[in-house]
Parts: sequence; structure tokens; C-alpha cells
Amino acid sequence: MDIREFYDYCKEIASYTSAAALVEWDMRTKMPPKAAPDRSMVAGKLGRTAFEMSTSPRMAAFVEYFNRPAVDRQLSEVDRRNVELETKQYRKISAIPPDKYEKFTVACSKGEYAWQEAKAKSDFAMFRPYLEEIVAYQKEFIEYCGYEKNRYDVLLDDYEPSVTTEDLRVIIDGLKSELVPFIRQLQEEGKRPDTSFLKGTFDKATQEQLSLDILKAMTYDFGAGRIDETAHPFTTGIGFGDVRVTTHYYEDNVASALFSTMHEGGHALYEQGISEEYRWMPIHKGASMGIHESQSRTWENLVGRSEAFWKYYYPRFQSRFAQFEGVPVEDFYRAINVAEPSLIRTEADEVTYNLHVMLRFEIEEALINGKVEVADLPDLWNAKMKEYLGVEVPDDAHGVLQDVHWSGGLFGYFPSYMLGNLYAAQFFATARQEIPDLDGQIAAGHLDMLREWQRSKIHQYGALYDPKDLVVRVTGKPLDYHYFMSEVKEKYSRIYGIVPSESK
Amino acid sequence: MDIREFYDYCKEIASYTSAAALVEWDMRTKMPPKAAPDRSMVAGKLGRTAFEMSTSPRMAAFVEYFNRPAVDRQLSEVDRRNVELETKQYRKISAIPPDKYEKFTVACSKGEYAWQEAKAKSDFAMFRPYLEEIVAYQKEFIEYCGYEKNRYDVLLDDYEPSVTTEDLRVIIDGLKSELVPFIRQLQEEGKRPDTSFLKGTFDKATQEQLSLDILKAMTYDFGAGRIDETAHPFTTGIGFGDVRVTTHYYEDNVASALFSTMHEGGHALYEQGISEEYRWMPIHKGASMGIHESQSRTWENLVGRSEAFWKYYYPRFQSRFAQFEGVPVEDFYRAINVAEPSLIRTEADEVTYNLHVMLRFEIEEALINGKVEVADLPDLWNAKMKEYLGVEVPDDAHGVLQDVHWSGGLFGYFPSYMLGNLYAAQFFATARQEIPDLDGQIAAGHLDMLREWQRSKIHQYGALYDPKDLVVRVTGKPLDYHYFMSEVKEKYSRIYGIVPSESK
Repeated sequence: MDIREFYDYCKEIASYTSAAALVEWDMRTKMPPKAAPDRSMVAGKLGRTAFEMSTSPRMAAFVEYFNRPAVDRQLSEVDRRNVELETKQYRKISAIPPDKYEKFTVACSKGEYAWQEAKAKSDFAMFRPYLEEIVAYQKEFIEYCGYEKNRYDVLLDDYEPSVTTEDLRVIIDGLKSELVPFIRQLQEEGKRPDTSFLKGTFDKATQEQLSLDILKAMTYDFGAGRIDETAHPFTTGIGFGDVRVTTHYYEDNVASALFSTMHEGGHALYEQGISEEYRWMPIHKGASMGIHESQSRTWENLVGRSEAFWKYYYPRFQSRFAQFEGVPVEDFYRAINVAEPSLIRTEADEVTYNLHVMLRFEIEEALINGKVEVADLPDLWNAKMKEYLGVEVPDDAHGVLQDVHWSGGLFGYFPSYMLGNLYAAQFFATARQEIPDLDGQIAAGHLDMLREWQRSKIHQYGALYDPKDLVVRVTGKPLDYHYFMSEVKEKYSRIYGIVPSESK
Repeated sequence: MDIREFYDYCKEIASYTSAAALVEWDMRTKMPPKAAPDRSMVAGKLGRTAFEMSTSPRMAAFVEYFNRPAVDRQLSEVDRRNVELETKQYRKISAIPPDKYEKFTVACSKGEYAWQEAKAKSDFAMFRPYLEEIVAYQKEFIEYCGYEKNRYDVLLDDYEPSVTTEDLRVIIDGLKSELVPFIRQLQEEGKRPDTSFLKGTFDKATQEQLSLDILKAMTYDFGAGRIDETAHPFTTGIGFGDVRVTTHYYEDNVASALFSTMHEGGHALYEQGISEEYRWMPIHKGASMGIHESQSRTWENLVGRSEAFWKYYYPRFQSRFAQFEGVPVEDFYRAINVAEPSLIRTEADEVTYNLHVMLRFEIEEALINGKVEVADLPDLWNAKMKEYLGVEVPDDAHGVLQDVHWSGGLFGYFPSYMLGNLYAAQFFATARQEIPDLDGQIAAGHLDMLREWQRSKIHQYGALYDPKDLVVRVTGKPLDYHYFMSEVKEKYSRIYGIVPSESK
């Protein structure tokens, strides 16, 4: 058996996933409404075909053969990693009886529908039986797959391979103990920036120009991608040479599209930067959800909400929107950096965001390990929101029902969002050391310096390394939340005019 | 075996062809250039999957079972027709040894590349060996499939089922004998309309509005489709509820996009009008290439280039383009109806177009039956152009090399273009009888009357009937080129101010 055969087979699978990605992109950007029901079927069919190929007897034969020690020793690093990724997926999927998995899929699609209804009526009880069924499947699947220390490790592994529940708990406990009092101090002692001048009406065509302009400044390659509008922005890698960004324009909010474009642009630079040598291989993707998110958060927050960036970009921005003519850049910078507790994760700022994730992690971990029941969720949610963010949750729609994830069976996914923020800060601290005068470069509009650094250190490797290894390779140290904490403390203390209390 | 199983299998096949159609639409409208090589592979893979399913042992079993007389007698008309279409395709494809077909596919893709090069250099000799190989395969395949009277029947059958070479020859000989002298008379005795005011610069955004506006007037359903720009306009039915139109805007030519949008819109109305009951079935498509073309030609020429339509539409058109302010509608109507011999088929007008097709039919038929060789083609081409249209072909690029079709193995396709014109005229004559004051309705902007007539008589049936039967069902008579000839004679004699000679 030649490794070429394995790669050819992977390429066949990737043809179907590539087509599925295009169908999904189209569904969310271009498709006329009447096509929706039939198109979902087409997307499902393509996905199933790829799934079946990943667990086929042919894949089983590859997995068996290339994992033989004598064969493995003859593989290159890249070949070995590709085999490893496919092996892992093969074993995980084939541990689950196909009929159970099929039923789970049905439960999830019913669950998503029920969740939509329940959220619209803000009634968790309507969703509860569906969620109970989904959680029961998740628990059952974990038993099939097996685990060493914590059941939740199996779920985490799907999105953040090599990161364990124990790792996360250490990070979360530490970060929480610093973040909760800091946020309280900001609220109690700080001066909230004036944001009144952000209100207004912003022509959509001009916002579109702005998004194009910012992506160009980020060195996004329009020869290998495009930007379109959608309801909920996303980025999709349809295949080599085609990584598409989407955004959403609000005519009453100029900041929304701006930052969502930079966020998605950050994801896109990652995918565009993966080595061409890995084209069609299993490693032609991000190292993990968290690492992916770190790249988007870097561009959205560490660049997009920085003083340096606006020193460069503000005059260009002002020239497009007359209402900012009399607004000094300092005021604008402060206005786009308001930090304050809120109810909805997706609308949370840089500082409070992680607390939304921590709460979800704690609930998921307890649920999967049987320490709490689905029925307990609303109370648990509301109590934690009060404890961590000091906010009262008025109803389920603004609380436990706000996210789609659980209804689709996505457990273990939320921590990646937080890890993204933490990886981003640690990577950025390293970039600051390695790129001479990074802030000055950004202020001069030379965003390519950062992009080149990311490409050489992170992007090009795709999924060659697990995130834990990658962080050490890039920064010389394991993941440490203090990079994030000090970045945030330093920045927001200045913006809010406070002297931060000493860390505990 | 239940007919439901057959339909489920057809639906699976259609999922892949639907995805392939979307991939191809995207390649021609939205895809960033760097994705091209990999995306062609994806499109090819999807096409092959569908092809393999159409010739699989499973399809063989369906074909065998549902064609048993005892089973066939229990089928409904619709079921029988669906089985018939799949059976026909199965038998035709499976008659050809797969390895031969594979080699033919390779020869065609090399052929297309060679044709591009040869056309760019206007050198038929460069293309000749490739074309010889493709023609040799075509001849070989015809022997595998078998034929009764004429080898060319096998090819025609792919695009115009039930129409034979003999049918075509009768039509062509008759039509040619009337058309050639009529065109000569137009040139010699007629007064060419003034077209000087069509020159100018036409804002693209305004042209886009115009295309949207015209499609709406045609009652094209934007809830089940969309319009985008492309290099070479086409229409594609991606699936139920999604029929997309494309057009191309030239800033120096306002008529081009206008008529190409109406042409493609005509194709789209057909696809949008097929009965929802036939969703996912093999008959959920047009009855033939020629019938499809008849619908596009109806809207492009019989409506779009008519006096009635411009009586309604000209004020709206004028309000968008200031330069037509002083131009009377009569002059505009004449200007868009210039008829004169030219070199390029795709740019030919309503009157001369069919002669371009006749010449191709005669050459193809002779070639396939071994009456001429590939080497003879340039001379043959040039001689016929001189004889039928009175024009001198200056070089191969403007002659025998102008069309892509042969390089991709498409023989037997050209006649559909001509048949489309003839069907269109015959259908339209019937519509005039059956819709009270059709011209008045069009002049009042009630294009829905015609559209409803087309839907009830033609569109809804999809491919339930062969074109020959459909024409009789709709018009009460077999195809007769005299409808076209009298339409054209009447219209152009008036425009050119001549008294037509008596028909021979």
C-alpha cells in the first residue's frame, strides 16, 4: 500500500466536503429562498458521502496498515500526522454504532427546530426534553469512545485536541479570580467612554467599501477569496485558493460590520496561509478551533481595537463618514472599547467575553458528568450570570436559550472561544518581541509585518501540530492566561482611568 | 421492487448533479481565480459520481425490472416516462466500453485546450489531429449504440430525441431555398435601418436595473432564482426552487445585455414552470435542447424584438438612458432589428442565424458518415459561407474554429439552435390564436398572459413528452418551418421596405 493511495482517497473525500462547503456558503449568501428545503438535502447528502468514506472499509484498511509500527517508521512527519488525524477520526466515529449515530443526528435536527421555537417563546421547558435526549446520546457516545480522566475530555478533544478538562479548569479558576474583581472595579471606579457619536445612519455601500478596504489592508488575497453579506458572519475554506469571508452590515451601527469583517478576515488569513504543499491533505485546516479563533481575535481585538491601528486608519475612516469629522481619534478609540457586563455572549466585549464561556464550560462539564440535570440548567445559568457578571437574567431567551450550540449537539465547543482569546494574547506578546516596533508598524499601516509573522509561525503549518505543541513552538511556553489578563488590565485601566488593584 | 425505490435512487443522483450545477455556476460567476484548477476537479468528481450511479448495477436492476411488460403495464404515464428516460440513458452509456469512454473524455479535454490555442492563432492545422481523434471516437460509439437509417441520428438523439436526420434534411432544404434568396433580396433592395444612436456609453448599474426590471416584467420568480454577471451568459437549474440567470454587461452596447437577459430569462421561465410534482424526477427538465431554445428565442426575438413590446417598454427604457430622448420608438425598433450576413454564429441575427446552423449540420452529417474528412473542413466551411450567406471567411478563427462545441465532443447539438427558432415561431403563431389580442396584451405590459400560456401548454410538462409529440400537442401540427419563414418575411420586409418575391 502506497501513501499516495491514502492521499488520493483523502482527496476524494475532500472533493465532497469542498462541494458541501460551497453549497453551505451559497445557502447563507446567494440562494433564493424557495430552494432551501431541497438544498439542505443536497448538503446533507454530500456530508454523508464524505462521512461514509471516512469510516469505510477502505479507510479502515489504511488506518490498519499505516499504523503498523514497521510502516509508521517509514513515514515522514507530514505523512504520519495526516494518518494520525484520519485514524483518530476513524476510531472515534467507528466506535459509535451507526444506527445510534443516525438517531442522534435526527435528535439534533429536531432539537434545533425545538430550540428555535423555545427561544422565540423564551420557554426552556419546551426545549428540555429534546436537550435531555441529546445529552443522553452524548453521554452514551462518550462511553463507547472511552476516556481516561474526565468524560468531558472526549468532547473537548473534537475541537481542542490535546487540551484536557483539567487544563481548562486550572486556567478558568485562575482567570476568573482575576477577571471578576477587575470587571467590578471597572464598573465601580472607571469612567465609561462616551459612545454617543457612534450612533447614526451609515450608508451600506460605503460600509461595503470599508470592509473591502480593511481586508486589503490586512493583505487578504482577493485572488483566492471574496466577501459577501450574510445574516450571521462566517468564514469558509471551500478549497485551496478559495477562502471566503462574510459580514453583515447594519445601517445604524458602523462598528459591527467593521469588526466582524476583521474577525472573519483573521480566520481567512489563517486558511489562506496554510502551505500549498498540504493542499487536499487532512492537515490542510487550522490546528484547532481555539487556534483558529486566536487568529480572528488578534485581528478583531488586538489590532482592530488598538490605538496603533486607529492612528493609521482613522483619517481614512473619517473621510468616508462625515459625522466623525469633529471626533478626535482618542475619543473614537475609547468608544469602540467599552467593557461592561451584558447578557448575550455574542455581543460581549473583549473583557467580559471569557466569563460567558467559563459559565458554559462549568455547566457542560457538570452535565456530562451527571453532576447536574438538564432541568437544573436555567437556575444554574442565572446564578452564575449573577455571580460572575453581576447581571440578572430576565428570561430564558436572554439566558440559557441564547446559543444554538447545544441544540445541535455541540458540547465542548464553547471553551475554544475563550482559548482563542488567550492564545491570541500570548501569540501577540511574542509577535511584539519578534517584530521590531510592531505598534509603530501597525500605526504606519504595515499590517503585512504581523501577517507574515503569523504565516511563518502559525498559518503555514495547518494542523501539523496539536495546539498545545504549537503554543510552545511559537511562544516558547505553554498556554498562560496571564498574557491575556495583563493585556486587558493595562488597556482598560487606561481607557477607564483606574489604577488596577494588585492581583491576588 | 417499488417505483419509490427507483425515485429515491434518481433523487440521490440528482443531489450530485444539483451540487455539480451549483459548483459550475459558481465557477462562472463568483469563484476567485486561484480556485479554478481544484474546483474543476470537484465538479468532475460530482459529475462522475452521478454518471457512475446512472450506469450502476442498481440502475441496471431498475431498468431490467421496470421494463418487464407485466410491470410496465402497471406504471402510470409519469412513472413510465421517467423509467423510459433513465433506460435510454443507461442503455446508451452502457453500450460504450467504460475505458473507451474515459479515453474519449480525455481526448475532449485535450481537444478543448488545443482548440483554444488553435483559435487564438487562427490555425486549423493545430487542431486537426485532436478533432480527428474525437471524431473517430464518435464514429466508434455510434457503432456500439447501433442505428437504423443514419449514423447521425444517434447524435441528434442526445439533444433532440425523436427528430431524425431525415426530418432535419427536409426542413433545412426547404428553409434554405426560401431564406437564402430572401436575405439576398433584403441586402440588395432593402434599406438598412439607422443604428447610429445605439452607440454610446451605458452605465453598468443602470443596465443591471434594466435587467432586473425586464425579468420582473417577464414574471421571472426571484424567490426561486437570481441574476448575476458572467463572461458567456447561461441559465442553470440548480434544483427545484433555484433557476439562475446570468448576463453580461457591455458599457458600449446597451442592447447586448438586454437581449441576453431576455433570452436567458426565457430559458429560466421554462425551468421555473415545470410542475412541482416532478421535483427530483428525471422528467424535471426541458423536453429537448430545441424546445428549451424555443422558449428563450420567444422572449428574446418574438417578444423582445417586437413592436408591441417596445410600445410598452420604450418609455421606461428612455427614462433610464437620456441619449434616447429624441429617438422615436419606430427608429429604435428598426435599429434593433438589423438583419445582415455575418461571420460569427453567436452574433448573427434572427434572419441569418439558421443558415449558420444549416452549414454546421451538413458538415457534421457528412463527417460522421465518412463523406468528408476533418482535413476538408476549412474549405467546406468557407465554400458554404460564401454560398449561403455570401460572405468571404478571412481566416479559421472567424470560420471553422469559431465554436467550442466540436472540441468538447458535442456533435449533433447545433441543429437544436435552429429547431428552437422554428418551434418558437410555430408556438407563437398558436399563442396568437389562443390568447385574445396577444400583441395588445404585450403592448400593455401584460407579459404574464404569454407566460401563463407557455406554462400551461409547454413548461409544466417538463420532459414528459418528446419534442415531436409536444409540438403536435401544442400546435395541432408537426413542426413546419413556414411559421418561421412567414414571421420573418413579414417583419423584415416591413423594416427593410421591400416587397418579398413569391416563394418558390
